[in-house]
Amino acid sequence: MKRDKPILLIDENICKANIQFMSEKAASHGLHFRPHFKTHQSRMVAEWLKSVGVDSITVSSMDMAEYFNGQFGHITLAIPFNRHQIDHLNKLLNDQYMAIMVDDISTTRFLAAEAAGPLGVWIEIDTGSNRSGLDPRKPADVQQIIDEVENNHKLSLEGLYSHAGHTYAARSEKAVLEIFEKARKDLVELKLQLKTSSDLNLNLGDTPGCSLSENFEGIQSISPGNFVFYDVTQSEIKACGTDKIAVCLASPIISKNEDRRELVIYGGGIHLSKDRVEIKGQTTFGLMVKLGGNKWSNPVEGCYLRSISQEHGVISVTDEVFEQFDVGDTVGILPVHSCMTADCMGRYFTLSGIEVDHMRVER
Amino acid sequence: MKRDKPILLIDENICKANIQFMSEKAASHGLHFRPHFKTHQSRMVAEWLKSVGVDSITVSSMDMAEYFNGQFGHITLAIPFNRHQIDHLNKLLNDQYMAIMVDDISTTRFLAAEAAGPLGVWIEIDTGSNRSGLDPRKPADVQQIIDEVENNHKLSLEGLYSHAGHTYAARSEKAVLEIFEKARKDLVELKLQLKTSSDLNLNLGDTPGCSLSENFEGIQSISPGNFVFYDVTQSEIKACGTDKIAVCLASPIISKNEDRRELVIYGGGIHLSKDRVEIKGQTTFGLMVKLGGNKWSNPVEGCYLRSISQEHGVISVTDEVFEQFDVGDTVGILPVHSCMTADCMGRYFTLSGIEVDHMRVER
Repeated sequence: MKRDKPILLIDENICKANIQFMSEKAASHGLHFRPHFKTHQSRMVAEWLKSVGVDSITVSSMDMAEYFNGQFGHITLAIPFNRHQIDHLNKLLNDQYMAIMVDDISTTRFLAAEAAGPLGVWIEIDTGSNRSGLDPRKPADVQQIIDEVENNHKLSLEGLYSHAGHTYAARSEKAVLEIFEKARKDLVELKLQLKTSSDLNLNLGDTPGCSLSENFEGIQSISPGNFVFYDVTQSEIKACGTDKIAVCLASPIISKNEDRRELVIYGGGIHLSKDRVEIKGQTTFGLMVKLGGNKWSNPVEGCYLRSISQEHGVISVTDEVFEQFDVGDTVGILPVHSCMTADCMGRYFTLSGIEVDHMRVER
Repeated sequence: MKRDKPILLIDENICKANIQFMSEKAASHGLHFRPHFKTHQSRMVAEWLKSVGVDSITVSSMDMAEYFNGQFGHITLAIPFNRHQIDHLNKLLNDQYMAIMVDDISTTRFLAAEAAGPLGVWIEIDTGSNRSGLDPRKPADVQQIIDEVENNHKLSLEGLYSHAGHTYAARSEKAVLEIFEKARKDLVELKLQLKTSSDLNLNLGDTPGCSLSENFEGIQSISPGNFVFYDVTQSEIKACGTDKIAVCLASPIISKNEDRRELVIYGGGIHLSKDRVEIKGQTTFGLMVKLGGNKWSNPVEGCYLRSISQEHGVISVTDEVFEQFDVGDTVGILPVHSCMTADCMGRYFTLSGIEVDHMRVER
């Protein structure tokens, strides 16, 4: 396995156990499992999901829909449809069942006119993440889209989709559960106010909520994504333990500062992304682990990535750790946001050195 | 020019004027101009720099040194040398004059033993950025490296290199100048305490300092990088006006929220990076401009990118702007950190639609 530059390691066993956990959880609640692929963006990880029975998936870009074209029966493109990509969509519809997402009537009408073939339509509901989606307290806006979809023979209504992404700001199980429960209720109560010719599916998506909640009453499907790898943000939220984090950046040490007790690694924002999380009042860009014996350690107490620039990272360490590592050694960094780190790195290596694909596209 | 996905526009005229400005500034102070290529990572932009007489360049990775191999007479790899890349370095030395950077004696000894041919050596000095580099108050550590270099016939001493990256935390011209002046003095005073057989060059690098300072006494060369594009961080620092920002992400609007007066764009962390800056107490991920007529506008008053996730961005806008834009329209975002945005996007398009390269490598 090359080690001249930072590489993104994937622990296949942890990843497969995370997949097993969420798949069983979905089954135990009678939920249709539509995992989000924006985290791994990998055909190999997709096969691991397929092996637990997944046939419906969720993606966040047309590029991803194209990358996974043909591998699964049903793909949901879960971002408000960008009408400039209608040609890409129509090409995909030749051989892939697709559902898109809308949150406005003009895009719905555009699709009714321009979609080439049968197309599933999710309506996005904003249950508090303040990003895209319709307000659940305004059922008339939702009804208008439902009516447009039901009056068009090419479009078929999938249901209401919400990503309660504001669970990422939570810092306790209780806080996550309150947000998730409100999102669940918003969807269930909204559904009661809508008139449809067939039953509406309700879908919730965030990893913290899907990991921690045991109440999915009225919900038909879930689409978490991050759970395949988890990360330091999820462990800070208490959505997982750090032992569930399945990816780790292996980086060489290129400098040491004795006075500040810091290790400088070749590994920066272009590798990890600039995502950060506050831990005990300290902005943190990753947690340090020790590598060796085909695995990595738990996070090393008192050590964290305190700063990153484009190519460098600075790890604050304890006296003991400072003495243990020399320039030229390699350390591991558990990422703050695994989706972004995987996107930066563009591929993975298993602990036995096998390369695992990640989508790469022209931007 | 395709517009189905976000694209990174480059205004060739602004970029060339920025290059002209910094080149003339270096010349007027008798400084050797070694521009840093980590910002643009482009062979075409490199040619624009070459056309103003640049022949010595600075890069931040071995990948970049390889990408620009042969285009310039002298390349400085300005990150503490990573000894796992010795084979890459030795291969480059076959046909490219290279200088590397060190800040510890063990790596210097490693290079003395392993470098295949003549190699320039910069010693990195930490003038306050608290990243890599030796402490200027400890001349003995620096002298030890100088002696090692001067005792080896393959290695030749380039000088002392410092990147006063802490100017990025400044928010006024005065604050930038204080930091830059301290860095300059640190190098000049350190040099007086060192014994060398030939004259030591002193090099400073940061864009805010190089843009604003008029005092380079005792300094022989500068290696700013960001100035080719500048960005919103630089304009907040007061290192440039927003009219000097040469890149802009063009993104389609995919959703609108009337209650919050927000536009949602297809354009997120994988396009812009997750870098951010505080403006008037508000975390900001970019400033909004209007596109049209082969240029972009000044930043639109009262409008800013308030939040980004992996693929989405949320722009807070004024009532007037909210009414002017519809789903399907395209807006421009001036990036907070142009180096990171360019690295995410992997290519540029000029305003007349010509593709401009950006290095793409396997990570």
